[in-house]
This record gives sequence, C-alpha cells and structure tokens, in this order.
Amino acid sequence: MQNYSHTIPTKIYFGKGQISRLAEALRPFGAKVLLTYGGGSIKKTGLYDTVMDILSDEGFTVFECGGIEPNPRIESVERGVKLCRENGIEVILAVGGGSTIDCSKAIAAGVYYEGDLWEMASTRHGVLKALPLVDILTLSATGSEYDGGGVISNMKINQKLGNSYTFPAVSICDPTYTFTVSKYQTAAGTADIMSHIFEEYFSRTPDSDLADGICETVLKSAIKNLPIALAEPDNYSARANLMSISSIACSGIPSYGKQSSGWPCHAMEHELSAFYDITHGVGLAILTPRWMRHILKKDPSCEWRFVRFAENVWGMEGEDEHALANAAIDRLEEFFRESGIPMTLSELGIGEEHFAEMASHANRGGYLKNSFVALTDEDIVEIYRACL
Amino acid sequence: MQNYSHTIPTKIYFGKGQISRLAEALRPFGAKVLLTYGGGSIKKTGLYDTVMDILSDEGFTVFECGGIEPNPRIESVERGVKLCRENGIEVILAVGGGSTIDCSKAIAAGVYYEGDLWEMASTRHGVLKALPLVDILTLSATGSEYDGGGVISNMKINQKLGNSYTFPAVSICDPTYTFTVSKYQTAAGTADIMSHIFEEYFSRTPDSDLADGICETVLKSAIKNLPIALAEPDNYSARANLMSISSIACSGIPSYGKQSSGWPCHAMEHELSAFYDITHGVGLAILTPRWMRHILKKDPSCEWRFVRFAENVWGMEGEDEHALANAAIDRLEEFFRESGIPMTLSELGIGEEHFAEMASHANRGGYLKNSFVALTDEDIVEIYRACL
Repeated sequence: MQNYSHTIPTKIYFGKGQISRLAEALRPFGAKVLLTYGGGSIKKTGLYDTVMDILSDEGFTVFECGGIEPNPRIESVERGVKLCRENGIEVILAVGGGSTIDCSKAIAAGVYYEGDLWEMASTRHGVLKALPLVDILTLSATGSEYDGGGVISNMKINQKLGNSYTFPAVSICDPTYTFTVSKYQTAAGTADIMSHIFEEYFSRTPDSDLADGICETVLKSAIKNLPIALAEPDNYSARANLMSISSIACSGIPSYGKQSSGWPCHAMEHELSAFYDITHGVGLAILTPRWMRHILKKDPSCEWRFVRFAENVWGMEGEDEHALANAAIDRLEEFFRESGIPMTLSELGIGEEHFAEMASHANRGGYLKNSFVALTDEDIVEIYRACL
Repeated sequence: MQNYSHTIPTKIYFGKGQISRLAEALRPFGAKVLLTYGGGSIKKTGLYDTVMDILSDEGFTVFECGGIEPNPRIESVERGVKLCRENGIEVILAVGGGSTIDCSKAIAAGVYYEGDLWEMASTRHGVLKALPLVDILTLSATGSEYDGGGVISNMKINQKLGNSYTFPAVSICDPTYTFTVSKYQTAAGTADIMSHIFEEYFSRTPDSDLADGICETVLKSAIKNLPIALAEPDNYSARANLMSISSIACSGIPSYGKQSSGWPCHAMEHELSAFYDITHGVGLAILTPRWMRHILKKDPSCEWRFVRFAENVWGMEGEDEHALANAAIDRLEEFFRESGIPMTLSELGIGEEHFAEMASHANRGGYLKNSFVALTDEDIVEIYRACL
C-alpha cells in the first residue's frame, strides 16, 4: 500500500427526479447563471425546456453558452469566459456529458485566470480558483461529474490536454437522461469508464484490497449492464448502474494505495482525438487490448495482474496462466466489438502517417517510462500499428 | 437502484508519515487548538509527544481535553465545550479512535449549540454548525474519520445515541499508529468495520452493483487481514488495509442505491453498551450471527442475500441454498471466535434482566419494522437471549 491523499467536495444527487434539487443547488452561489451545453440533444429530449422552466420560475437570470464540441475546444472556453466576465456570472450550470462539464470547469477557472487560456490548459497546476459549477449529467462516461479534471483540445496545434480545474459543487445524476443516448455513445462511454479503471487496476501494487475490489466491481458491472442498456435503452437499472460506476471510476478511490500507472491509454488516445477528433471512448476501446498484448509480451513479470483480471473479472479458470492472461485480453476485445465499437483505426479512416509524432506527444519526453510497463516512443508506435 | 445523495467533504491523508501534514491541516483554521484524546495510550506510544512538538514548533497554542471514555459520555462533551468557549478555541485536534473523534464532533457542534447538550445529542438533526475538526486516527474501527456522525452516551439514563454532528475537515490516517493496538481491540474494531457493511449489505435492493461489490470487497479484506494483524501486529500491509476499509465502510458509498436497513445490529448493540459499557465491536460481533439466524428463520424470502454472502464473501459453493446460507453465518461466528472475541453475553457477565427495556429502547417505537427483516420488540429480546 502506497500513501495517498483524497477528497471529493462534490455533492451527488443520484436518481430519478433529482432535478427537483436544481434550484437549491444553484441558489447559494447567486442568481446569474451561465447555462452550458453541447450540440443541442438536450433541446430534442426536452431537458433544456425543463431546466429553463425551473430557472425562470425560481428567478434566475440565464445566459447561454451552447454548441460545446464533443472534444471541447479552447475557443469554447474563451467564449464562455468572455460571457462570464461580461455578464457577472455567479454560477455555471453545465447540462450534458463529460465534454460539456470539462469545458465548463475550464471556463469556471478561466474567469479568474490572468493570461492566455491555452497557457492555463497546457500548464500542470492544482485545482484553481474558479466559479462554482453545478452539472446535470446526461452521459455515463468520463466521470467529470465527480472529479476536478477536464480535457481541452487545441485543434490548431493538434493538442488535447487534461488538467485540474475545479470540482463540481453539485452533480445531478439522473439515469433517465441517458435513455436517449445512442448505442454507439453508450458503448463508447462504457469503454471510457472501463478504461479509467484499467488505468488504475494495472498497477504493480499487489496489496491494495479496497482499490482492486472496487476496480473489479466496476468492470463486472460494466460488462453486465452495457449489453442490457444496448438491448433496452430505457432499462433503468442498467442505466443507473452505468451512471453510478462512471462517477466512482474517476473518483480517485480506485487508485487508493496504488502506484500510479501514468494512464498510458489515455495519453495515447488523446493524440488520436487531437489529430482525428474521434470519440474518446472508441479510441480507448481500440487501444486497450493492443496495449495489453504489447506490455504482456514486453514484460511477462506483469502477467499475474492479467491472471487476476481473467479470474476476478471474467470468471475464467485454468492452470496455464499465460493462456489465461491472453484469453482475458481477447475476451475484452470481443466484448467491445460485440458492443458495436469499430475496433480498428482503419475503420475510422486513420492511417499511420502521424504515429511517430503522436507517440512523441503522448510520451511527453519519457513520461510513460513510469507507467505499469514502461513505454518508449517506439512501443507506442507499435501499439498504434497494432490498432490499424 | 434507489435514489441517493452523497458528499464527504473530509480530506484524507493516508499512510506512513502523513503527520507531516498536521500543521498545514490545522493552520487555515487558527492557532488555538483543543487537543482531545482518550485514556492516555497516545502518551505511552509517544504520539502525544510527537504531536505536541509539532504544535509547539509551529506556534500553535494548545489546550487539552484528555480522558475521553471508550463509550464517550455527555460529561466529556460538556467539559470540552466549556474549554472551547472559555479559551476561544479555533480548531479541535482529535488524536485517537472513534470514541475520541465522536466526542470531538459533539464538542465541535456543541460550542455553537444553544441549549442543553444532551438535548443536542438526543435530537435527530442534520450536520450542525461546528468548529473545524482535524483528527489523527489510531484505531481502525468506527469510520468516524470519514463520516459526520458520532455516538454519545448518557450513563445516568442508560442511553447511547448516534447523531449527525460534523465531518472532519482533515483525517490523518497512518496505519503505523495501530501497530500497538491490542489483539482484543484489533478484533473488536474489525468486527465494527464488518458490521457497518452488514448493516448496508443486508438490503432488499438486488441491483446496486457498486455498493454490493464494495461491501463484499471490504468483508473479504477484513477476513483476510485481521488474522495477519493479530499474528503480526506490525504488518504494515494488513494494518493499512484495515484502516483503508474502516473509512470506506462508514462513508455512505456501501449504501449507494440501496434501501436503508435501519442498522438493526447497531441499534441493539447501543443498548448493550449503554447498560453495560462493553466494547462496541464486541457487542456487534456477538449480536450479528444471532440476528442473522433469527431473520433467516423469520423470513426465508431473504435467503438469497445470505446465499450471495456465502458465495461472494466466503467463496462457498453448493446446491442447497438453505445450507449455504446457514453455513455462511456459522463461518462468521467461528471467524469472530477465532479472532479472540468472547462470543456470548454470559462471558461478559450480562444476564437477561434488562432485555425487555433494551429491546424497547432499540426499537424506538417500531423503528426497526423497516429494517431488512422487520424486528419487533419480541424479536429483539429473542436475539438478545440467543446471545447468552
């Protein structure tokens, strides 16, 4: 067990109808609200009207910042910050998935940031001074509703960077808002949840019982509930379990006492999204089994962890540990494919022309040498190639 | 999945040497510190001197409130509140186990409470306005380091009541401080951790994957690590796992989405402690298997939950579900006995003379009719009798 520090100041209201808490969640912070959202799906589902009715009935003044992109851009952060500064915004209300919430976190911090906002997004720092943020979650995926981080893209220079900004004060997590999420986004979101766990689970620390048990619980719940949610999009139990595990997966609790892995799949995926603007969870699903096979081959001393994954997550049994480890990886790839995720980069129209540059970015001067199994730029290129 | 609301504002610093964070944890709140502790074991272990040296070196002014009882009394709360008010205390530093931290929470809230402090302790209310509280944990048991509750006793009227007071701002959790905890208290503390889980795990809600998985993880970790800690008191990994699960067990996360069970074993145990001042965890260990047998017999429709307990926690297998359920309960009782806990009330010198009165208190006018399996006063008396 390694040392750890942990806090999550966010209050979660989870379940059907929790939007009834919205006014009380916002009111302590003020009456001037910036409402942020994405491409407009909340208008189609009626959630936008519901929110606007509540805000109007309860006497809030609302300014809007819609159109936030799936991989949110620095330009959206700049636009939001300008709106906040010009209108004396007191609290941000993000309605959407991880992209909208991530962008809103950067806006919340950006309001107080003196200097260029891409500089803020691309400099490592702790949680910043920020406007209070309340969110209504509409996608089970990133866990942004229960952590302090956000990921912002600068497509002009093909960079997508995660950073700490601020924790939401309140997250309203109503699984019924995910009934209308497409099969594709449901599968991609679940792959994202699972990847957050893989990034922590695949660690050298053998004795962090709580963290490992939570990791296995989240993975088993994802494996159980994704097929149900795909077959029955309005199955409340399946949607509720996916939403509940999405928050915990990114909470830091699954890493309690564990040596940090450096989050290699996220580092590699951010390059795919930065160069090709693909869906984050799809990139992660494609990369993960290839990364697993690569590191298992490169360093067989990590095999015990894959055996544990096989036994405790997939319920596999067998004497041959090497076969077990590989079978677990194959099963994971098959699971993603069965969920409708395109499992090669070629299917997304991505070739190898930028792999060397992407690998160098992902590795940030040797950053991934400290991951579960050390990765060089060459390793990363090989992993990208295995995804073609 | 039921709805839930959740927040834990406490910051945890977990691991060896985290006392280095003490001054930074206290400083934002002020320089006048009330140091609270129990019967003086922290003087024997040297922790008292370490803390006093840090506080002195860092320029804090310290007032002391030692001698807090294992089942902390309302008189200690009154004494602490008086010290705070007379000396303008700005922050409380609790060094000890759950009793010291519970009492300190009541002191922290009591400072602002206008009126009789037993009235505060015996009235159901939410988290109260309170002085900030920092703690250094020395016993893995109650989870008081990571929740807002406290339990205070009034021995004049044989009442022991739990209530919400305040969350610690910071909890410093260093497993090495538990190396000197006796075998008896180590076992009792682990029984308390396990009971916090049983109170949530035995619920009618079948589909709360995350909560059930965390419950099973905590139970398995307790079962694995208690025998190691008893055999090797300074085994860091075992002590660290017990400390880590103690915090999560009481965090509210193991109840995510589950129908509340009413915490029947705690209600019944508080009467044992209120009448006989016994160690809380010992009372829980004695009661739990008898409560389990009683409810399984009373309402066989809850058997599925015991079968799950048998399979997922004890790794038992078998076709006969009834036999499996009972075997899991027997195994639990055996586990507690093997850990050195006296497993009958007779061994503690307790007879049945107060059972009817205790049952009526525990049930608070029918409170336990909503527990996992409804309990009447008569049921509770039968459970107490089975413990003789």
